[in-house]
Amino acid sequence: MEKIISLTKRRGFIYPGAEIYGGLAGVWDYGPLGAELMHNIKELWWKKFVSRRDDMYGIASGIIAPEQVWAASGHLVNFTDPLEGGKFNTMFKSKIGALKEETSDIYLRPELAQGMFVNFKNIVDSFHPKLPFGIAQIGRCFRNEISPRDFLFRVREFDLMEFEYFLREEDWEKYFEYWKKEMWDWIDQIGLNKGKVRELEVPSAERAHYSKRTVDFEYDFSFGRKELYGLAYRTDYDLKNHKLDYYDEDAKEKFTPHVVEPTFGVGRTLLAVLDSAYTEDEMGGEKRIFLKFNPALAPVKAAVFPLLKNKPVLVKKAREVYEAIKKEIPETMWDDNGNIGKRYRRQDEIGTPYCVTVDFETLENNTVTVRDRDTGKQERIEIKKLADFIRG
Amino acid sequence: MEKIISLTKRRGFIYPGAEIYGGLAGVWDYGPLGAELMHNIKELWWKKFVSRRDDMYGIASGIIAPEQVWAASGHLVNFTDPLEGGKFNTMFKSKIGALKEETSDIYLRPELAQGMFVNFKNIVDSFHPKLPFGIAQIGRCFRNEISPRDFLFRVREFDLMEFEYFLREEDWEKYFEYWKKEMWDWIDQIGLNKGKVRELEVPSAERAHYSKRTVDFEYDFSFGRKELYGLAYRTDYDLKNHKLDYYDEDAKEKFTPHVVEPTFGVGRTLLAVLDSAYTEDEMGGEKRIFLKFNPALAPVKAAVFPLLKNKPVLVKKAREVYEAIKKEIPETMWDDNGNIGKRYRRQDEIGTPYCVTVDFETLENNTVTVRDRDTGKQERIEIKKLADFIRG
Repeated sequence: MEKIISLTKRRGFIYPGAEIYGGLAGVWDYGPLGAELMHNIKELWWKKFVSRRDDMYGIASGIIAPEQVWAASGHLVNFTDPLEGGKFNTMFKSKIGALKEETSDIYLRPELAQGMFVNFKNIVDSFHPKLPFGIAQIGRCFRNEISPRDFLFRVREFDLMEFEYFLREEDWEKYFEYWKKEMWDWIDQIGLNKGKVRELEVPSAERAHYSKRTVDFEYDFSFGRKELYGLAYRTDYDLKNHKLDYYDEDAKEKFTPHVVEPTFGVGRTLLAVLDSAYTEDEMGGEKRIFLKFNPALAPVKAAVFPLLKNKPVLVKKAREVYEAIKKEIPETMWDDNGNIGKRYRRQDEIGTPYCVTVDFETLENNTVTVRDRDTGKQERIEIKKLADFIRG
Repeated sequence: MEKIISLTKRRGFIYPGAEIYGGLAGVWDYGPLGAELMHNIKELWWKKFVSRRDDMYGIASGIIAPEQVWAASGHLVNFTDPLEGGKFNTMFKSKIGALKEETSDIYLRPELAQGMFVNFKNIVDSFHPKLPFGIAQIGRCFRNEISPRDFLFRVREFDLMEFEYFLREEDWEKYFEYWKKEMWDWIDQIGLNKGKVRELEVPSAERAHYSKRTVDFEYDFSFGRKELYGLAYRTDYDLKNHKLDYYDEDAKEKFTPHVVEPTFGVGRTLLAVLDSAYTEDEMGGEKRIFLKFNPALAPVKAAVFPLLKNKPVLVKKAREVYEAIKKEIPETMWDDNGNIGKRYRRQDEIGTPYCVTVDFETLENNTVTVRDRDTGKQERIEIKKLADFIRG
């Protein structure tokens, strides 16, 4: 883990929050590569669980919510940490409004779910969906953790990806199994080391106050086996508390739907992706470190460079190749720092799947050398086929 | 404006925050179509101003920041509203930490810029960029506005898209002009009614405390001509306050770079996009309302439906067409509610560029009827050419 923290800081993935002022425990800033990796994770998730489906409604609700929401959800009473024998509510609290008589308490959301529940009626009114259907969102949440720790794992500010899947009570087990399978599919898709992931049936005493069944997906982090994702059957707890129901037009029946909820932490995903990708091996007799990202997640898809940076004719040609590729694949990087060996090492460390070198042969026949991150193998590719080759 | 608010609520673009509890002034929830429109705006911006460029570093910094950041930036003293003669700081304040001796004050950021400034050294250390270069981000900001109003215009929780462009002092005017031109290019790209946009040279008495020159881009909203975007020359004010400088390796010289900063509000962009797109006209002798979105921004790119919903053979074929298109263009919608006329009206109201009808002729020759949102014109297209046609 220390190696990953050091690499991600040095290479521009993740920096401590407000570092020049000594840092703020539990808050991390994402540098260019981390921000891109995070963006790729979110886009892939949204495509799989929202855009490509017919039964999912993606929303973006507010972060600040009034006290009534958290009273109805049970968070005001239950979202606590036993602290020195007392009870400490881990929601961040603030005041809204300026004039004294209009000031009221608000809370930064500690989870996304209430944003979906309070918009349940809006979605039904606008889209008339039939059961089962889901409401999804990706967004920032805040928890005033007593002791933030383990890098991106236990933090005070984080993004979640989550949906509430509304269904008839008698169907909950069927869809619980269905979403469990889809979560495994996701874990596979983002290239996590499956040997490090396992399901944990959470015993009733440890489940959240609203849940009748919870399965955690745990990951073997270097600091221990910890919760990566959660899948919870929330029953009709939330809709009942918000006094919401559903009218089935076919069955002419009014009732409160039940809910199955898969939750994915973005930071934890990123941490597990980094952990699964981090590899040390030997190449050409030298030790090297590389991040074996799934190309769909890699923040930089390809790096283009001239063989020699002091040959204007090579640099000019390499810029042409770079600019042509960048138009088609914006996540392409120019790199002419140091010699070829240094560039390979740098690109390996940020997980770039392909390094493209423009050399003297390029000037003759419009082919370039493409080097594969994982195998180190090099092959010559025609420039006009390069974008398709990188896309895979 | 009332018409737009009503349409966007009815059709699932934007809902009042925490509406079932009476709403929370200045906080809005984005429904499926609004969330998608917002996402498309952000993606387009990021591509234009970050990914496609060589000189821009995109980051994602934390929302909560310690008091020292806001002391250095001047916000603790200057970010106020004159309220009943007194001074009211419009930053949201909260406490971080649980144990009394470790508790300290934090603030939700009221702007993005400090996130870029406090990461200036990190970016320089990781990437060694040469001047001029920029640090960009898209993210959520919070201001405890005394009187939130005008729909998405003056709100308490909002996203900004912004970058700080670092340069040598002598270059600021050149890049000020350069970015002004790029901002006009953006305004054009997202299809704003340019007749409603104008530049305003902000007089010195009205400029923010850090700025030596500011140009506002104003938009003629129905509630008045108001600030849409801002372009500010921030001098070296911020880097100086954070005690940061830059070492130019070529010139062997250490100095504090100056900054030009373009700022784009996401909600205000969305509001101007809606205002520019909202059109009432007559078609086939009937009044209709439609949103004339630039197709790149439209939340739904195409809707597919069977001519008649009670003909299983048409429904089956239409589902096939729908599923094939949705694989290539996930922002495709299935619609079989009501008759064709109703579906056209509904799709017009959400700004869908193309409606695809599967009819009896489809069964014979694999062509479909494609109806254009703006002209109402219909043409027959081969199914195998449909995805390319929709992509434009």
